[in-house]
Amino acid sequence: MRGDELGQRSETVRRANLAAIVRQLHARGPQSRSTLVSRTGLTRSAIRGLIGELAAAGLVSERAPAPLGTPGRPSPMVRLNPERATVLALEIAVDSLAAALVGIGGRVVAIDRVDRQRGHTSVEEVAADLAELARRVVPAGHDPATLVAIGVAMVAVVRRDDGLVAMAPNLGWTDVPLGARLAAALGTRIPIVVANEADLGALAEHRRGAAVDVDDVVYISGEVGVGGGIIVAGQALTGVAGYAGEIGHMPLNPNGLPCHCGSVGCWETEVGERALLRRAGHPVDGGGRAAVDAVLAEASAGVPRAREALAEVGRWLGTGLAGLVNIFNPELVVLGGLLGRIHPYVAATVAAEVHRRALPAPRELVRIVPASLGVDAPLLGAAELAFEPLLADPAAWLGARGVVPELASA
Amino acid sequence: MRGDELGQRSETVRRANLAAIVRQLHARGPQSRSTLVSRTGLTRSAIRGLIGELAAAGLVSERAPAPLGTPGRPSPMVRLNPERATVLALEIAVDSLAAALVGIGGRVVAIDRVDRQRGHTSVEEVAADLAELARRVVPAGHDPATLVAIGVAMVAVVRRDDGLVAMAPNLGWTDVPLGARLAAALGTRIPIVVANEADLGALAEHRRGAAVDVDDVVYISGEVGVGGGIIVAGQALTGVAGYAGEIGHMPLNPNGLPCHCGSVGCWETEVGERALLRRAGHPVDGGGRAAVDAVLAEASAGVPRAREALAEVGRWLGTGLAGLVNIFNPELVVLGGLLGRIHPYVAATVAAEVHRRALPAPRELVRIVPASLGVDAPLLGAAELAFEPLLADPAAWLGARGVVPELASA
Repeated sequence: MRGDELGQRSETVRRANLAAIVRQLHARGPQSRSTLVSRTGLTRSAIRGLIGELAAAGLVSERAPAPLGTPGRPSPMVRLNPERATVLALEIAVDSLAAALVGIGGRVVAIDRVDRQRGHTSVEEVAADLAELARRVVPAGHDPATLVAIGVAMVAVVRRDDGLVAMAPNLGWTDVPLGARLAAALGTRIPIVVANEADLGALAEHRRGAAVDVDDVVYISGEVGVGGGIIVAGQALTGVAGYAGEIGHMPLNPNGLPCHCGSVGCWETEVGERALLRRAGHPVDGGGRAAVDAVLAEASAGVPRAREALAEVGRWLGTGLAGLVNIFNPELVVLGGLLGRIHPYVAATVAAEVHRRALPAPRELVRIVPASLGVDAPLLGAAELAFEPLLADPAAWLGARGVVPELASA
Repeated sequence: MRGDELGQRSETVRRANLAAIVRQLHARGPQSRSTLVSRTGLTRSAIRGLIGELAAAGLVSERAPAPLGTPGRPSPMVRLNPERATVLALEIAVDSLAAALVGIGGRVVAIDRVDRQRGHTSVEEVAADLAELARRVVPAGHDPATLVAIGVAMVAVVRRDDGLVAMAPNLGWTDVPLGARLAAALGTRIPIVVANEADLGALAEHRRGAAVDVDDVVYISGEVGVGGGIIVAGQALTGVAGYAGEIGHMPLNPNGLPCHCGSVGCWETEVGERALLRRAGHPVDGGGRAAVDAVLAEASAGVPRAREALAEVGRWLGTGLAGLVNIFNPELVVLGGLLGRIHPYVAATVAAEVHRRALPAPRELVRIVPASLGVDAPLLGAAELAFEPLLADPAAWLGARGVVPELASA
């Protein structure tokens, strides 16, 4: 091996090590150098040098820890500076629009959510409303040079390569280049990444919610429709073009109701919001959080039709989950959105149905829990997605900003 | 970075580069040094040195290529020596037992398959029969030092870590440590790896069959039961314990037939061998290849009941495939076993049902094809699995054999 090859390898290794440190701090918060040594496998001296570089670039700070009363010199605590690198997260949900400014390390600087009318809306209108929301969450003195990227979560089938919105039935959109439209509305040239809201909910729950440290996860986001975000061996399941995870459209009842997708008896026709409202004898049009809460209140008060509606949704939920348990052998199933909210009412029914239908080997290993980040999971996942380029190569990002020229040399 | 760290890194890089070369040659056959340069991204001089090491260890040979009539010195062809490293592959199928001796690079030295009676059988009996088969395929003068490992494919739910057969309904086995039983029957201490036959069928089709160069694949193995082997981003989907891919037990027909797994209306109750025979008016007990061939012969001759039986199986096959297309967004679906054999009879029906039920975005990207390795796909997959330790680190394997001491020093 020639010297220059070794030199290139060494530089590649250094950049990968910087990335490992930043990713650790981003995912797990402030920690001592000793902890970084044990988690990254790097030597103490390597950690010291790399932290020095990141501190010089302003991305991390060190401070002495509180004395622990243990012998030996305490290791300084290393933390990311959330104001040094930020992302704008946006969400287009069925009933609302949302925006958040998030600093590296996951600190939410500002967050805002506004209701929107259900139904078809033009891209221009949504983009304008999101631009208005974005202005609200970005404070006046915010340094645009710190903005890494913009992430957008959306109830839609989204192509991975370019964020093309292939199909958003709630809005009536087909093949919309949303990133470009948003860039125009926001008047920005910052990179914009768009992804499916269930995929992003899974990402957020995996990094900061119910699924931290769990590498095989099925996250199910249920509202009007049902979507899935699936983590396989720690990585998001995307499929060949990013469309994977449309578990709401598993055919589960071939003699069931027509689905808006054109098929019949998809899972979401049995466990989505409309199924619950219909079975409870409530109007299915309109819907939304208040309508579902009314059913839950009736069930709590012992109204038989509401209780039976929830039991029926629970049986279908368990039936579909049994299939997913058999297919994915997940360690954890996380129920988000509507399905997380009804979880306390249906948990026993779901467990019984999964027990009846799933194979013993995978069934004995799975836990089914509600999402822990609630309604904001997809928005927080959009922030995580937007941070990815920085996390993958912090040296390149810092270098490109010209703040630390020596980091750009590689 | 200290000198000894750089030295360790350099050694790690060298071993990874050896592995990259061996894996290339194993997967894609003999090729020139120039091709290896372009496929591995290594420099010409690095390739020369590494090939030299592998040749000294006897694992590869080089020979001058036939003149091409093009100017310049032709690059020598590099090939693996299949007799230098071999694996024993075994298979326990519903209707047969099989064994093969396979050399590195995928050369099948010998292969044998014998019918077995369907139904429950003791582990000891199967192990003894497999040991007998193994003796037939391993030639008298075979050097045991060349044997890398033994791979076993089995119609069963198999735990990844240790190859425990959690459930093999066709044989009536539960929680059987098959590897240990086989080691005793074979009188060997060679590592034995056991895996699900559909997972191994997928591996074989991915490496040498219909799914070469395709990274998102759903392989479906259908006989009496229906199993799946799923490739996600080029890697096998295992789930948390190796049980993933049991797509035959997706609940698809809530009013369907009882399944042997204890659930009702699983996909395999509608598309497995029994479903076809029952619908065609043939006896479902016994079954096997001849019984299915009889239905196909009737369909070819225009017997309405056989044709309608195939159409009905095709509709259910398409329904389940639509769900898998929505869940996985695969580039390719490969139909193995029974489902591969009936493919010509049901392709149009399947395509129509997938068109009706799958979302347009993923549906437009998927191709559905029969398996190209036929009945031996799982057996060949078992050979591939057994080669993995060698492919992952050829230096360690060669070093451990003491043949090339300098390779053991690392």
